[in-house]
Amino acid sequence: MFSSRFAKYLLSLPCKSAVRRRFSSQAVAEKVTDGFVEDLRNVVGKANVSTAEAVRDQHGHDESYHPTKMPDVVVFAQSVDHVSKVVKLCNDTGVPLIPFGSGTGLEGGINALKGGVCLDVSQMTNIVNVNAEDFDCTVESGVTRNALNSFIRDTGLWFPVDPGADASLCGMCSTSASGTNAVRYGTMRENVLNMEVVLANGNVIWTAGEGKRTKKTSAGYNLTNLFVGSEGTLGIITKATIRLYGIPESTVAAVVHFNNVQEAVDTTVQVLQCGIPMARIEFLDDVAIDAFNKYSKYDMKVKPSLFLEFHGSEAALEEQIQVVGSKPYSTDVCVPISHLPEVIVKSKEMIKNAGLTGPIVGHVGDGNFHVFFPVDPDKPEQLKAIKDVSRKMCLLAMDLNGTCTGEHGIGMGKNELLVKEVGPAGIEAMMCIKKAFDPNNILNPGKVFA
Amino acid sequence: MFSSRFAKYLLSLPCKSAVRRRFSSQAVAEKVTDGFVEDLRNVVGKANVSTAEAVRDQHGHDESYHPTKMPDVVVFAQSVDHVSKVVKLCNDTGVPLIPFGSGTGLEGGINALKGGVCLDVSQMTNIVNVNAEDFDCTVESGVTRNALNSFIRDTGLWFPVDPGADASLCGMCSTSASGTNAVRYGTMRENVLNMEVVLANGNVIWTAGEGKRTKKTSAGYNLTNLFVGSEGTLGIITKATIRLYGIPESTVAAVVHFNNVQEAVDTTVQVLQCGIPMARIEFLDDVAIDAFNKYSKYDMKVKPSLFLEFHGSEAALEEQIQVVGSKPYSTDVCVPISHLPEVIVKSKEMIKNAGLTGPIVGHVGDGNFHVFFPVDPDKPEQLKAIKDVSRKMCLLAMDLNGTCTGEHGIGMGKNELLVKEVGPAGIEAMMCIKKAFDPNNILNPGKVFA
Repeated sequence: MFSSRFAKYLLSLPCKSAVRRRFSSQAVAEKVTDGFVEDLRNVVGKANVSTAEAVRDQHGHDESYHPTKMPDVVVFAQSVDHVSKVVKLCNDTGVPLIPFGSGTGLEGGINALKGGVCLDVSQMTNIVNVNAEDFDCTVESGVTRNALNSFIRDTGLWFPVDPGADASLCGMCSTSASGTNAVRYGTMRENVLNMEVVLANGNVIWTAGEGKRTKKTSAGYNLTNLFVGSEGTLGIITKATIRLYGIPESTVAAVVHFNNVQEAVDTTVQVLQCGIPMARIEFLDDVAIDAFNKYSKYDMKVKPSLFLEFHGSEAALEEQIQVVGSKPYSTDVCVPISHLPEVIVKSKEMIKNAGLTGPIVGHVGDGNFHVFFPVDPDKPEQLKAIKDVSRKMCLLAMDLNGTCTGEHGIGMGKNELLVKEVGPAGIEAMMCIKKAFDPNNILNPGKVFA
Repeated sequence: MFSSRFAKYLLSLPCKSAVRRRFSSQAVAEKVTDGFVEDLRNVVGKANVSTAEAVRDQHGHDESYHPTKMPDVVVFAQSVDHVSKVVKLCNDTGVPLIPFGSGTGLEGGINALKGGVCLDVSQMTNIVNVNAEDFDCTVESGVTRNALNSFIRDTGLWFPVDPGADASLCGMCSTSASGTNAVRYGTMRENVLNMEVVLANGNVIWTAGEGKRTKKTSAGYNLTNLFVGSEGTLGIITKATIRLYGIPESTVAAVVHFNNVQEAVDTTVQVLQCGIPMARIEFLDDVAIDAFNKYSKYDMKVKPSLFLEFHGSEAALEEQIQVVGSKPYSTDVCVPISHLPEVIVKSKEMIKNAGLTGPIVGHVGDGNFHVFFPVDPDKPEQLKAIKDVSRKMCLLAMDLNGTCTGEHGIGMGKNELLVKEVGPAGIEAMMCIKKAFDPNNILNPGKVFA
């Protein structure tokens, strides 16, 4: 661990003031007075503010195993005007604000580490426009990908980025989500054209200019891709204009079994090199196939396998683990594909040596894979061992030109790994941006940066 | 025009100090003393510093028609260490620094508006690595796309982004370049995995962490896409890790003629909707076909036409105009394709009404098109009329969900249009980033922001 070095390092940074500003839960709770809650009610209406414990508890955690904290109050925004006024109120009062979409994140991004206001934007569910001829649409913050795809089905179009969960599209912008078919369609980074964002001072901006929805632009700094993946720490995403694609007329699925990981990856490279436009190239290791067989009463060969254009493999596995135990703990490293065999083989060793078990599912076209560890809530030492293996996998990936997170984000789980990944000057550059956009550090404090 | 309103607006911004800091040429010239030049020589070696007028003149303009200004001194960097030390020297002294790649820009991005140091990085021509198995490579700042493609030809890979000119790849990162086949491969934004950047204080960062070259990442703020398109105003790009693609085994080219623009665009939409992976969909209007016929001794129907997978149409036209007159003046608007017929029809009217002529070439798959106006250097009133039409086209495009620049950037030519395009709060957000990264405003001052 490098916690103390990390703290010492933070203290040495010029932009440290923005990020070092600490909230104690006590201090925040004192600011969330009856008067403050009354102010919130005046802004958004009485029915849209809740301090009920059940509501706060529900908004205090996502699907990860990070320690949870409840917000002091939950606000249900019904409009961008609500969002702007609530953010401004929090900024003026110094109360932390955590945006909440669908709560399906995997790195504790919506945990209210120091209490404060949880701003739930899931009720803003307008589909603002669908421009079928231009292959784009604009949605509000509460529209989920399944809701959008149902709504536009008759147009012959769909939004293909698929992280498994039925996440909100603006939440997917916030965490830079991707999923099984990024090899064909890219991640959120490649599929967002414009966003409406509320800044810490309450200003409302469109990252590419209001109403703009061109496929490309060279006009000024790329604010769009600065906010994509910023995890609620630079502003609140209230609308997104995203690309749409023609629904493929037909899909072909194939399963190929291999003797080892290297063979599977070699095949992937060759497929990509031929320029065959694959939608999905998913890798499942022998443990994953075995689990799949048992759950689905299949009899597939228990060997490392590639699923080409196979739909739903990851979701099916997650579901299976959830049925047999609890929600799984998912790792998320990503490396150049040439290093994938080494990382997978060594990960399997680490998993075995730690006395753990967990199927491996990989979006191998991207070099990204997950281990889904089943978690027994009654065994804290098991969770500790899982976290330890997960961290070692990240360090291994980072040594091999890779990243600690291909698609889940940093949240509260990987702050220290981020410092190691981008280095002192890189983290300083990120902190300077944070300071420029959120000088009072009210937006999702404790996420991305510790 | 809205110059005075623009100036007034700038004065109202909180981050104005960074961008309002003005350099007078006189004040800068006084800072570029013999001692300062001697310091530069000590850093990079005597042979790599020039104050010769011919060298300065050559580095004072790109291929645009914007008024030119020479730098006071030209430095030829041979390493990132050179770049870091020269940037630090300029930052400490308050001397403007303008990075120079291949000088092929179209919006005056490398003009030395107030003099200062031109930092020529074109001699850093190492291809650092080629990872054929991972479809990526890393190049230094002086490597051009043709040089790279020649070097890697035997691997079966190529880098497809093609802006026409043989630009340096890091320069293409800097201006967020694209070109004829972005519809298939995307622009620089989608094709840069990582960059080494020297910041204003001399710090060297890798935007995605040193050595990282994964196809995707969710690790922290997307610094990579913040620096792509920042036009030398936030830092100096010294290395880029970019995606490579398999060379297509065969290409099919077709030309289809239409009675009007609407029909051509309708066809484009249908082609895209079918999901056919087109490499290039280039539109040429009747004027462009006529010019092409005369230049190439062809006899194509003089009608609006689509060139599918057609290679070199834009470059050929540019070349033709250069042969008959001088370098052309190129416009660069981009709109959602549904608005393309209206913008093209109205642009043709504007061109005609202004007594001008100019062929239209469009990357219609992206909604981006150019008018190539031939310029007679002896007729200043003609250049004025061209600029006027170009500006009106930008305003029209911006009214129709479009942008004033699809791929050439803002440079010094479109600062005011950028303000209109992203709005007051948007420009303020961009200025806050500028201030965070370049508090002394030494990096390419006067570009992007007026």
